[in-house]
Amino acid sequence: MQKLEVQLGERSYPIFIGESLLDRPECLLPYIRGRQVLLVSNETVAPLYAERVRKVLADGGLTVAEAILPDGEAYKDWQHLNLIFDALLAARFSRKATLVALGGGVVGDMTGFAAACYQRGVDFIQIPTTLLAQVDSSVGGKTGINHPLGKNMIGAFMQPRVVLADTTVLRSLPDREYSAGLAEVIKYGLIRDLPFLEWLERHMDGLMARDPALLAEAILRSCRNKAEVVAADELEQNDLRALLNLGHTFGHAIETAMGYGSWLHGEAVATGMLMAADLSWRENWISHQDVARIRTILVRSGLPVVPPPVSPDEFLRHMAVDKKNIDGRLRLVLLRQLGRAVVTDEADRGRLVATLMAGEHLGQA
Amino acid sequence: MQKLEVQLGERSYPIFIGESLLDRPECLLPYIRGRQVLLVSNETVAPLYAERVRKVLADGGLTVAEAILPDGEAYKDWQHLNLIFDALLAARFSRKATLVALGGGVVGDMTGFAAACYQRGVDFIQIPTTLLAQVDSSVGGKTGINHPLGKNMIGAFMQPRVVLADTTVLRSLPDREYSAGLAEVIKYGLIRDLPFLEWLERHMDGLMARDPALLAEAILRSCRNKAEVVAADELEQNDLRALLNLGHTFGHAIETAMGYGSWLHGEAVATGMLMAADLSWRENWISHQDVARIRTILVRSGLPVVPPPVSPDEFLRHMAVDKKNIDGRLRLVLLRQLGRAVVTDEADRGRLVATLMAGEHLGQA
Ligand SMILES: NC(=O)c1ccc[n+]([C@@H]2O[C@H](COP(=O)([O-])OP(=O)(O)OC[C@H]3O[C@@H](n4cnc5c(N)ncnc54)[C@H](O)[C@@H]3O)[C@@H](O)[C@H]2O)c1
Ligand SMILES: NC(=O)c1ccc[n+]([C@@H]2O[C@H](COP(=O)([O-])OP(=O)(O)OC[C@H]3O[C@@H](n4cnc5c(N)ncnc54)[C@H](O)[C@@H]3O)[C@@H](O)[C@H]2O)c1
Ligand SMILES: [Zn+2]
Ligand SMILES: [Zn+2]
Repeated sequence: MQKLEVQLGERSYPIFIGESLLDRPECLLPYIRGRQVLLVSNETVAPLYAERVRKVLADGGLTVAEAILPDGEAYKDWQHLNLIFDALLAARFSRKATLVALGGGVVGDMTGFAAACYQRGVDFIQIPTTLLAQVDSSVGGKTGINHPLGKNMIGAFMQPRVVLADTTVLRSLPDREYSAGLAEVIKYGLIRDLPFLEWLERHMDGLMARDPALLAEAILRSCRNKAEVVAADELEQNDLRALLNLGHTFGHAIETAMGYGSWLHGEAVATGMLMAADLSWRENWISHQDVARIRTILVRSGLPVVPPPVSPDEFLRHMAVDKKNIDGRLRLVLLRQLGRAVVTDEADRGRLVATLMAGEHLGQA
Repeated sequence: MQKLEVQLGERSYPIFIGESLLDRPECLLPYIRGRQVLLVSNETVAPLYAERVRKVLADGGLTVAEAILPDGEAYKDWQHLNLIFDALLAARFSRKATLVALGGGVVGDMTGFAAACYQRGVDFIQIPTTLLAQVDSSVGGKTGINHPLGKNMIGAFMQPRVVLADTTVLRSLPDREYSAGLAEVIKYGLIRDLPFLEWLERHMDGLMARDPALLAEAILRSCRNKAEVVAADELEQNDLRALLNLGHTFGHAIETAMGYGSWLHGEAVATGMLMAADLSWRENWISHQDVARIRTILVRSGLPVVPPPVSPDEFLRHMAVDKKNIDGRLRLVLLRQLGRAVVTDEADRGRLVATLMAGEHLGQA
């Protein structure tokens, strides 16, 4: 078992990473302050893993209630958040209750936000069960729900008391979801950690086989990278944290153009990262070989690298409304060199359009 | 114009108190960081005062959008909170937007909570237009909405950037609402500020005439008292802040027994404070004359002092579910002496029942 401490002053918390952590009381019980626990999960994950967590909690002498949400991003809304409040109030839970999120990023975001709001704030623990949630949502404290007019528009910054990243539960994850998580893992290598990128290149076959030891290492290094960025910019008040959005502005446009759900977020980010790499090459910042390396590792991870047939105009329209853009200028995260991303609003319009028109060529060496 | 600084480290903010502050750009504009402002009010207050605020903002070169909510505690729910998010997103407001609450405690609580959640937190300004909101909700940072199973169950701690307590707008306040606000004013004298109680006794006639200078003084001293309590216990983590609940456990039972809305909160608190005083007298902590003084000032303020005909059993049932009670013990705020409240869970059951049975006698000297 590995342990990473996310340093945030009095809101610091540990992330435990390893096999079968679900069954280990010592990872969970010391972080629960009261006697009341609400276990929040969804209809897919709960039948697989909820009973094990419930048992650890009940054996610890705690009162456990459950809220099981329907599965899907479509239910990440107020109406379903309210199911969590209903369960808390039906159980008459007090301000000393703890909420435990067992599931992917959707369950984690909703549970964290419910914890931030219930009686103006109760404790919250994350047990992320997707690779994406383990390497991304378990660090940073972002929680929230969607609004019909925008994703993640309503939420709170809320740090968990502890995160358990159990590598064993990833075995049941569908292949596409697993690959989508790898996109965010690769992202950390690209933006700030060349040695990690090299490590991933060496171990991608083992990672694709979901080898637990390699997974633990990949999760640890991912979370450490994100934690370092977040610690320097907890409330997202300067540019630093924006580096985590490599590939996301392009990816966001893909997701929007194709309709949410047809491309997974991580898939869109993967293709978006290759587009960012292509533009960085056109800006003469990275080499053609660098672009090829990025393409190769994405393909080896089972990720798409060819954008859907969307016209440059439509692409630009969807990119411009991305909330990461302030004051109407198109700010992009590009690669100053392999392993070092920068935020810039000075990318040349013509080169950007060339990238948007590259289409299938992006998939070719 | 008076100014009180609420000391909360980097979340400190000023409260301006005085006549016609609504029209004074210097109280508002310096506290707005971006260019986008959403003015939130309700259908009663907006026709009276929104245009003046809108003009100050627009003259300051800001983009102003509006969200006008229906009037009433019944609409302090998610569905109507969502109207604020709808307005923000329809106007495409960014994380640099500021929300301005113009109204009583309902508008203030909802707007503050919306500000806490919109894109995980934007700025927020309070222009409270009821006496209760000026002396109570403008300090403390509590925001939120109701859930069908409990009042104020969903919310956040969120400090405003500035509060404008305009004494002139109180002229249009209905008499019952005005008196209800005075109950909370008197409360500060009772729990920790005997000189203020004496001042109120001297000036109650002028206050009932809504004399602006007296009002400014009463609001200032009320807010200062609350600010001192809150500064020592911002997130409500020890007993200190509980003193602010003098009369509230009894009052809560009255409100619940009678159905929300038939007694105003301040009215129930007034009668509840007299019940707390009666019990404090039975505990031999304050004198019969002290109780009479409290009764007199409440009556002069137009407040009820006789509880409704509710049986002791029903009273106790409603008091026990009050969320201020931890671990099943009935914790009450009582008067150790006039001007000094304490939290205790040791009140004698027999004496408590005697207070609950006193009924009309409470109204008599
Ligand atoms: N808070 C943050 O910092 C942050 C970061 C990134 C993404 N997110 C959010 O996370 C969400 C995406 O998260 P996600 O990719 O985990 O999606 P998800 O939560 O929808 O999970 C993907 C699918 O996998 C299923 N699943 C989860 N664990 C499983 C397991 N162990 N075995 C089998 N099936 C399993 C889920 O039920 C779901 O059907 C989005 O809403 C996004 O906004 C948040
Ligand atoms: N956040 C806090 O710390 C805090 C403290 C106390 C109460 N509250 C909350 O505040 C709410 C009660 O506040 P309230 O008593 O102000 O009630 P309110 O907001 O319902 O206002 C009372 C009535 O007066 C009207 N009104 C407001 N200003 C007016 C004016 N200047 N002229 C004419 N009419 C006017 C309103 O439209 C309403 O009909 C409750 O929801 C309570 O939970 C919050
Ligand atoms: Zn992402
Ligand atoms: Zn009150």
